[in-house]
Amino acid sequence: MSQGGPGHSARGEGGTPVAHGGDLDQARALFPGALEPWIDLSTGINPVPYPCPPLDSSLFQRLPSAADHAALRETAARAYGAPTAAGIVPAPGTQILIETLPRLMAPCDVAVVGPTYAEHAAAWGRAGHTVRPVSDIAGVGDARVAVVVNPNNPDGRVRPAQALLALAETLQARGGFLVVDEAFADFEPVESVCPQVGPGLVVLRSFGKTFGLAGLRLGFAVADSERAAALAAALGPWAVSGPALAIGRAALADRPWLAANAAARAGDAARLDRMIARAGGTLIGGTRLFRTAAFPDGPALFRRLGEAGIYVRRFAERPSQLRFGLPADKGEWCRLSRMLR
Amino acid sequence: MSQGGPGHSARGEGGTPVAHGGDLDQARALFPGALEPWIDLSTGINPVPYPCPPLDSSLFQRLPSAADHAALRETAARAYGAPTAAGIVPAPGTQILIETLPRLMAPCDVAVVGPTYAEHAAAWGRAGHTVRPVSDIAGVGDARVAVVVNPNNPDGRVRPAQALLALAETLQARGGFLVVDEAFADFEPVESVCPQVGPGLVVLRSFGKTFGLAGLRLGFAVADSERAAALAAALGPWAVSGPALAIGRAALADRPWLAANAAARAGDAARLDRMIARAGGTLIGGTRLFRTAAFPDGPALFRRLGEAGIYVRRFAERPSQLRFGLPADKGEWCRLSRMLR
Repeated sequence: MSQGGPGHSARGEGGTPVAHGGDLDQARALFPGALEPWIDLSTGINPVPYPCPPLDSSLFQRLPSAADHAALRETAARAYGAPTAAGIVPAPGTQILIETLPRLMAPCDVAVVGPTYAEHAAAWGRAGHTVRPVSDIAGVGDARVAVVVNPNNPDGRVRPAQALLALAETLQARGGFLVVDEAFADFEPVESVCPQVGPGLVVLRSFGKTFGLAGLRLGFAVADSERAAALAAALGPWAVSGPALAIGRAALADRPWLAANAAARAGDAARLDRMIARAGGTLIGGTRLFRTAAFPDGPALFRRLGEAGIYVRRFAERPSQLRFGLPADKGEWCRLSRMLR
Repeated sequence: MSQGGPGHSARGEGGTPVAHGGDLDQARALFPGALEPWIDLSTGINPVPYPCPPLDSSLFQRLPSAADHAALRETAARAYGAPTAAGIVPAPGTQILIETLPRLMAPCDVAVVGPTYAEHAAAWGRAGHTVRPVSDIAGVGDARVAVVVNPNNPDGRVRPAQALLALAETLQARGGFLVVDEAFADFEPVESVCPQVGPGLVVLRSFGKTFGLAGLRLGFAVADSERAAALAAALGPWAVSGPALAIGRAALADRPWLAANAAARAGDAARLDRMIARAGGTLIGGTRLFRTAAFPDGPALFRRLGEAGIYVRRFAERPSQLRFGLPADKGEWCRLSRMLR
């Protein structure tokens, strides 16, 4: 039987495994002779993590309290511009929210605007819904639920808040709702719909990507109070760890860090774009944490990079495209630069 | 609206909040003038935690890999005597498994053998099942699902594996299963049913209580591979944090620590029993991590302890009873001893 570990387990409709970046064991299996240490550019995780405050041992030892939870919800509501802390649901990462949302709704028609992060369609499919991939908001048709990733992964496409709010209203009128996954919104000049959450709208916000702390497992749903309560009940009262509650609270309140890091990552993204162009790539789009480009021979470049110990994200359905995360330091930038020329 | 934070959110059937220990903010609200620092004896969390190995920063930064997950599953399978690692589902605490199990089954009749940990009945009720509290295995009747906590919390009652396995077989024959919550089994001379898991049996194992690391959020389901896969899919591939995967693996493999700590906690429990008897209490039962006793005036003792800054667990339905966790150090033992005489 398949199991719930990453990589070999996340399965979509019909049991097809969903491919993910971020697992260097997969890279090593593909390229057993590659140069070590590997450079992992297969994710959109910030390579310059938030400097964690010292963690008191009590955070590991005692059960998180209601006050710990409430404090994080307040901080997250301010950071995301959400109308109330009651609409914030902290979770051990957004993935579990992506899994849980579909299980709180009777089977219906779901439109996923894509191509996008594959776990959305897979999770709705696993929960028994009828999933239809559509290429734009206009294609949502009479679906009851729609999913939009904004900015989109992997192409970085941004949709205006106005269009999303109009869609949410339409879906709400037929008893459904819109899921807006703002996993990569923190560093971008996109207009978040968090201030407008209501019964027709659920927003997902990732913590680990922006703050470079994907192993901590923290993410949020921003919703109306009723749906927030239903989601929170499905997770139970202590799903988020003590360290995640404490670090999340410190990091989300640190606006100067966010601003400085957003500027630095914009510089990184521009530098990566220049390298991609030099290597013959045509930029498709991205965010400050990843760039996606088409290459005359994508599979060959993926192989050359892999053999050199550089793991990027490829897409089975679009073999010419590769997605590059940001190198972490001078050494990684140099190794990548030598390959992209 | 109620929210998912601990204390003010976990709700049972009909929306009644489920009372829990471990939240000193509640203690402070009850006894605003109490002596600080509080001694929290309201939980069954080991006060002598496992000494965490140094945590590499990469555990916080990168997404946990399939290999990290597989290694923890292998270690847990050995620690619990489970037949295969494929039947092990790591989760961010057992509470989320208690919430998730009922949502994977169509509404049915569920018997909870109690009085016991209140979240079981509450979670099955929240998921739409018909829950019947019963006082013994014989009362399970024609329910499809039954829940037994072994050893039981708060009275420490132990049920023989043979009786549980026979019940599991009966339930399986009618398309149901038995949940055995072995949250407090690690330190006890009870016969675990983990080696016998099959389609009629799901075992829950807590990590944070035994190892004194409740804030880390780690727990396990032990099941047949098929149910394990369904549970794992509901949690998604990255619900457990990098630090929890690493610490869990080290701690579960450390049999000498477990043996030494079990012996030390047995000494603590005996010492607590002597104090309880001196204070006029009649021991009802317990485990090495908590003792439950009846007192001539339970509410008065709860109040006297609270005013002295010692928070124990009381039970709305059984006001004469109090449950004591273990003091952490000499200072806490002395303060408790002065009150129990």
